Formats: sequence, structure tokens, C-alpha cells
Amino acid sequence: MSKKAAMIEAILAVVGTSSLISSPEEMAPFVMDWRGRRQGRAHCVVFPKNTEEVSAIMRIAARYSEPVFPVGGNTGLCFGAVPQAQDTVHPGIMLSLRRMNTIREIDRIANLVTVDAGVVLGDLHNAVAAEGRSLPMHLGSEGSAQIGGLISTNAGGTNVIRYGPMRDLVAGLELVLADGTILRNLEGLKKNNTGYMLDQLFIGAEGTLGIITAAVLKLHPRIATSAHAWIGLNSPSDATSLLALFRDRAPNLLEACELVSRSQYELVLRHIERVRLPFAELPAWSLMVELGSADAATDLDAIMEDVLQKGYETGLILDAVIASSQAQAEEIWHFRHSVSEANKKEGIGIVHDVCVRVSRVPDFIQAADEVSAARFPSAKSMVVCHLGDGNVHYTLMFQRQDVPADDEVFALEVEKAIHDVAVRLDGTISAEHGIGRKLTSELERLADPARIQVMRQIKSLLDPDNRLNPGVLLNPCMSDHKGA
Amino acid sequence: MSKKAAMIEAILAVVGTSSLISSPEEMAPFVMDWRGRRQGRAHCVVFPKNTEEVSAIMRIAARYSEPVFPVGGNTGLCFGAVPQAQDTVHPGIMLSLRRMNTIREIDRIANLVTVDAGVVLGDLHNAVAAEGRSLPMHLGSEGSAQIGGLISTNAGGTNVIRYGPMRDLVAGLELVLADGTILRNLEGLKKNNTGYMLDQLFIGAEGTLGIITAAVLKLHPRIATSAHAWIGLNSPSDATSLLALFRDRAPNLLEACELVSRSQYELVLRHIERVRLPFAELPAWSLMVELGSADAATDLDAIMEDVLQKGYETGLILDAVIASSQAQAEEIWHFRHSVSEANKKEGIGIVHDVCVRVSRVPDFIQAADEVSAARFPSAKSMVVCHLGDGNVHYTLMFQRQDVPADDEVFALEVEKAIHDVAVRLDGTISAEHGIGRKLTSELERLADPARIQVMRQIKSLLDPDNRLNPGVLLNPCMSDHKGA
Repeated sequence: MSKKAAMIEAILAVVGTSSLISSPEEMAPFVMDWRGRRQGRAHCVVFPKNTEEVSAIMRIAARYSEPVFPVGGNTGLCFGAVPQAQDTVHPGIMLSLRRMNTIREIDRIANLVTVDAGVVLGDLHNAVAAEGRSLPMHLGSEGSAQIGGLISTNAGGTNVIRYGPMRDLVAGLELVLADGTILRNLEGLKKNNTGYMLDQLFIGAEGTLGIITAAVLKLHPRIATSAHAWIGLNSPSDATSLLALFRDRAPNLLEACELVSRSQYELVLRHIERVRLPFAELPAWSLMVELGSADAATDLDAIMEDVLQKGYETGLILDAVIASSQAQAEEIWHFRHSVSEANKKEGIGIVHDVCVRVSRVPDFIQAADEVSAARFPSAKSMVVCHLGDGNVHYTLMFQRQDVPADDEVFALEVEKAIHDVAVRLDGTISAEHGIGRKLTSELERLADPARIQVMRQIKSLLDPDNRLNPGVLLNPCMSDHKGA
Repeated sequence: MSKKAAMIEAILAVVGTSSLISSPEEMAPFVMDWRGRRQGRAHCVVFPKNTEEVSAIMRIAARYSEPVFPVGGNTGLCFGAVPQAQDTVHPGIMLSLRRMNTIREIDRIANLVTVDAGVVLGDLHNAVAAEGRSLPMHLGSEGSAQIGGLISTNAGGTNVIRYGPMRDLVAGLELVLADGTILRNLEGLKKNNTGYMLDQLFIGAEGTLGIITAAVLKLHPRIATSAHAWIGLNSPSDATSLLALFRDRAPNLLEACELVSRSQYELVLRHIERVRLPFAELPAWSLMVELGSADAATDLDAIMEDVLQKGYETGLILDAVIASSQAQAEEIWHFRHSVSEANKKEGIGIVHDVCVRVSRVPDFIQAADEVSAARFPSAKSMVVCHLGDGNVHYTLMFQRQDVPADDEVFALEVEKAIHDVAVRLDGTISAEHGIGRKLTSELERLADPARIQVMRQIKSLLDPDNRLNPGVLLNPCMSDHKGA
């Protein structure tokens, strides 16, 4: 019996025959990035049903020196879930958490929910809504993204301005380490000062330090009333000034605050049917604002009008529309949410996910535009920005004929130019998408070497054989060596 | 020249003569716990003026194999700032951050403040208030506690229910590692998904992994209106039920929610002058509630009345008083804040700082009372509980004649009994006070060995010679050995 066959037999003895696949046909959707851009391979895909099975699989993987590639909903944008082992003799085991999908407990007094890692975000939304609570994490892929992946990538989205990223919603984790050790912190304690906060290391670690098998998440009250506005502005700096007015007048009510450039919305008008522009023409910049309150008595329209009034008076606002119905609110947000589809139809968009301090967003956009105009004059620059977070999705849109044949090399050239601008403004090259396999060389190039060294040391400590999602986050050729 | 003299000369060359003291008289207030319960010793106390000086001192300490004991305001309750080296040949260097006390920047758009570690919390409150913002961290020692210490101990207090502990207020740290390496993350980014969140390891690490020299902290809006009530109840479980009503009706408005037992308030009435009881007699349990809103238009009294009405209707409330003036509000909270002073006058109180899930607070109090009645019948049990956090300060009050001569041994016996109850209910033995030197043996006894092992490994990684606050957090006899 080959080593591979022996290993699979050992795993089957743990999980049973219905919980493992190994034929290329069955594995195809798992070993491929969801957008079909990256192809990986693996000995098998395993579907453990509980934490003890995960632990047993990790011990078997260790015994056979096989890497382990955890996968949730496979909705990432940086190829972090594609199994691409450096060592071709050990292509590894894919670990799908999808069968661990129980919502274990909703505690309305403590405002906590305990879930398995494989629970789909949309399902969790529904379950907590039924208990009068909300888990304020909203993103395009919520119909398939799983909690474990969302935590491993520290997911963001449009509500971070108010509730923070996934990191801020985690009250505890259950983890399986490379050697099969289980670390449980599912007590749901609001305070615990008994040493190092290990959980936080694993949030955003992209599966390179351990497997997240369950979590306790913080619940928030449901929004009982909301107000929505589309505000036309002259410039990003007017937008940050207006944001400051919102922070003064409605400090705890900002559910979303999205800044979008005219160039971006022109593509939505061009490519998407059934979008309605509430202005005579597109403003240079659009600020899409949602206010929300858990107290139905809060008069959000009045607050919105107060701020807009002040914005008009101080010359910050060109024009604005407050949604007068739920249907109108949905129209406004439909425009915003049509961006991805419009861009796909337009051409080849090279998207960046940078973050700078909120107050520096205008500087970043101006500097990035200058660099783009000089280096890539054929590209059109477009901005979609989670303004309250300083998170700018800066896209350079190329027509297909302008992009060289080797588009990965070209994309990296573009990314380097824009990342340099972000770093010059003390920003980061990944705000919410992560590093994955896409940005490891950029992280290596731009991050503080002292920080990278500590990261490598921690990786070596918790995964001395570099078997947990190898090649993700840290450059493989470097992270193979042990210790510092 | 002795090694000590040579080392002091090397440090003096870095910081200058006015920034180091080494005479026993001058060092006395630094090497002693502020309550005078623990005495330490050190070669010298150094007062660096900037991060580069801290880095240079760390390199000198490494060269001379001396431990380093960081100290902020010396206001801790667990002896975490007392320099007590195991190795008497190397008593070490105390590092006081008090001269690094600049508030570097207040950014109103990004809602962030950048501060040196030695800034006193009360001074920071005043500075951000002048900019219309708040740093919602309030505790008795805020007149002397420093930011670095508050972060190193992940401080709590009465506002955690709404804003979280110090961990949740940190947006970035500047750190100096044991070898003098400086790690800077002061960019104030709301999102940064470029690898392991190292800062979080140092929050609550009690100075055992590195020295915090500066921080970016998240600001909140100032409270524009508030409402205060003292509610009399029959039981802790009625209190958690009422808390659920508050969470439903005023979910984002709870600034404080403190549960206090009659036995505790009897001592306040007995020992503190000028406290006024707004009831004919003390209720069995008191819930002290503050609602706050940054929007002056929020009618908090109406919301408070709504909840109390519902509480009366469902039989949860015996009696309640809503403060009708600021003066009355202050009277209510003066009662609450007189607890420590009353206890000091009464006798020997052995205080616990446990945390259980909010919904289990009633079970904990009942079980702890049962254990106490059986094991320590001469003691009176008293409860002050940050109910929204599940954090119970459970005190057993002994008369002096009932406490054996060796009171440290006796205290540990009492603590063990109460800690066992907390752990049985999936709770923790330290919610907000930390471990320090006080609870290392209890942590060793009760924590998950797998978790402790990873903590030891991380300690060995970042401080291989065990020179950073040795003896704090991890048991010295064990943490001296390197690796796992």
C-alpha cells in the first residue's frame, strides 16, 4: 500500500467513508479558486463532523508529513484557500469545515452565539434575527462564506465603521493546532485577564497557525429604524469633512459610509440595467450614508437632514437625496452593489485594497491618481471607499487590448505602484482581503522586517514543519527555515 | 568598577544623570507596592524620555543579564509592578515610563489619539474632552494610572459593558522587545489584514513580553445626556432578567450596570458619612444603572421609565429611584464608589475578581455563598458585580480576630475555594485585575495546561532569558526553562 493510500485509510478510519473524497473529478471544485484563476491539488478532501475528528486528522497529517489546507466557503480574493504545496511529494489534505455547521447556542442575556466554524454567514444572520439580535457582518459572499473563513481572514465589509471587522465580533475560539492539540475558549467571558490573548493570533492568520473549529461571537441589537442618503460632493476632502459632521451629530448611528467616484458609477450606468440615478447627472463624488438605530423612536431622518443642512451651509454638499421609502433606500444601495458586476463587464480591473488613516484618504486618492496618470495613462481610475475605515478599493480599469499577455506580471507592476503610494502615507496594502498567495511578495517587500521576523518566529513556533496552509501569508521559500 | 556600577554608567550615558536614581531612599516608593504589602529591590530606577532610550536601556540590560521591571502609575492590585527577581545577583532595572507623557496627536476625523505610555489617564480624559471626544475607561485610580500600565493589564472598570476593556480601545502599539527591537504600529489604521495581530499579544501580557512605549487609542463621542437609577431587587436572577429588558429597550445606551448585595451596602451605611439611602430600607440587591447618549435629544428618562415599568409589571423590581438631578445622580454613584473605603474600615476583606458568562452570574453567587457558608462560616459574603460583563467581585469579609496569623496562606485557602466555584461554572479567576505575582500559582493550578504551554512557548520566544518582569503571570520556577 502506498503512503498516500495508508494515510487515506487512517483518515477514513476516523471520519467514515462518506466524509472523504479523493477522485480528481469530485475534488475539482475544492482545489480550484472560485473564480477559476488558480488551480491546486491535494491527496484528498476531508469533511470532519466535529472537533475531535479535526484533531485526529491533524495528528495523521503530522505522522505522514502532509500539509493541511483548510477551506471554508472558498470565497476569498487572494487565493488563500487554494492547496498549492511547494513539495510535490506531499500535496496535502484539504480540510473542509462545511459539515461542522451547528449553531450551538444563542444566549440572549449575554448577547453571544456559539457556532461551529462551518456555519454559513447568511444562515447565522437568519438564526440570530429570529432571536431579535444581529451579527453585523455583511458582505457580498454571505450566502456561502463560512464563519471559520471569515474569522481566519478577519473579514470586513460595509458595517466595519460601526461594529469593527470580524476580529471585534469574536468573543472566543476553539482551535486545533498543528499537532492536534485542542485549545478551547468558548466560555463566552466578557473579561478574562489570565495571560496572553492567544485567540487574537489566529484571527486573520489565514489558516497558517491552526484550524478554527468553533467560535463564540458577539451579538448586537437589531436595527429598528434606518435612514439612507446619496450625497453628491466635489471632492474626497469634502467627504471626510462631512464624515466629521456625521460623527459629531450622529456618532453612534453610522451603519455605512461609502465614497464612490464618478468614474466608477459611470460604469454602473453603462452596464447595469434597472439602476436609477436620482440626480440630473452623476456628481463628481458620491457619499452613500446609512444611519441606523436599535431604538425605533430615534428620528433618523431629522438627524440626517440636520447634517445635510449643515453640509449645504458649509458648502460641502452639491446635492443630496434622502430615501423616502424602503424601496428608494434599496435603489440607492442597488447602485452601490452593482459595482462589481459593472466592472466585470467593462474590462480588466486591477483592484487594490489599501487602508490609510481616515483623515488621509483624500491625499491617497490624489497621489494614486498622479502615479496612475504618469505610469498607466491608458487606465481609468475608480474609487470605492469604506470611508469610515480609510479603506480604499482603488481600481485601475484597463481595456483588454492595453493589457500585456502576461497579465499576472503586469498586475503586479500596477499593484506595486499603488502600494508604494499607500505605504508612503503610512498605509497598508491589505485592509480586508488579506495576503493569501496573492500578496506574499508585496508583504515581504513592504512590511517592517522586524515585524515580519516576529511573525516568522511565531509561525515556526506553532507550525514548526510549515504544514498549515504553507505558502499563504508568508513567503514559502523563507518560512521553510525554522526559528530565527 | 563593579558590574552594577558599569551598567549604571552605561545607562547614564544614554539617559543623563537626571533620569536615573539608585539610592535606596529615592527608590523606596518605586520598589514597593502602593499598598505597602510587597517589597522589592532593584539596582536602579530609570526614567527614559523617549522610545529610543527605552531601546538602548533594553540592550544594556541584555548585555548585563539584568531583568527589567516596567512600572506605570503603580496602581495594580496583584503586585505586577513590584521588582522581585528570583536571581539575587541580578535584581534588575526598574523602568518608569512617567517622563514619556506627551499626548502626540488627537485626530478628530479618524477618532484616534496617539499617546506616550506614561500619560496619566485622567490627563488624557481632559485633553480629549476639550476636543469633544471621550476615552471611555474609568476606574478609581485614573488620577495616577498610566496608559502603558492600563494596556499591559488590559484594564476594565465600570464602562466595559458598553465600550469593552482596554483591549478594545487600542488601535495600535509601539513596543520595545527584550533585545531592544522597536515594533511600531502607530499608523492608526482601522483595518490592516497583513498577518498576525502582534499588538494583541502584548495587551494584558503584564509587561512579560515587551515594553509598551506608545499607543493609538480609539476615541468615542462624549455623552451629552444621561439617566441614572438605583433599582431594588430580590435576587441576582431578577437582575439578569432586568438586564435583558434593558438590552432589548436600550441596547446601545447602557453605560454602567452594577449589581451590589445588601451585605455590601450595609457596610457603606455603617462606615461612610454623608451617604444617603433613597429607600426606607436597603433592598436585598441593588442594581445601579446609567444610560448615556451622545445625542442630547435622546429622552433617556423616558426609556428608563419604560424599562422600569416593564420590570414592575413582571415582578422583577421591588422599588426604584430615578435621579432627577445631577446632584442626585452623584449621590447614587457616591454610594457605589464608597465600597472600597467602607470595606477597609470594616475588617479583612478577601476580594475575588472572577468572571462567568453573564447568564451564569446568579448561579455563581449562589454556589459561592454555599461554599463560603460551609467552609468559612465566620465570614460575611458581599458582592459588587459589573453585571453586563459577568465580572463578580466577591468578597469574604472577616473580622480581624477570625483570621489566622499567616494571613497570606489563609487568603490563598479562601481564594482557592472561590476560584474552584468560578472554574466549575466555566469562569475565570481574573476578570480585570490580572495575575501579577498574586495569582501565578492559581493560574498554574486551574488553567488549561495546553493553553499554559503555548503561553510559555510564546514567552520563551519573545523573552528567551526570562528577563521581562520575571515572576509575573507565569510561575518563575517553570518559566525559566526554555522552549517546550
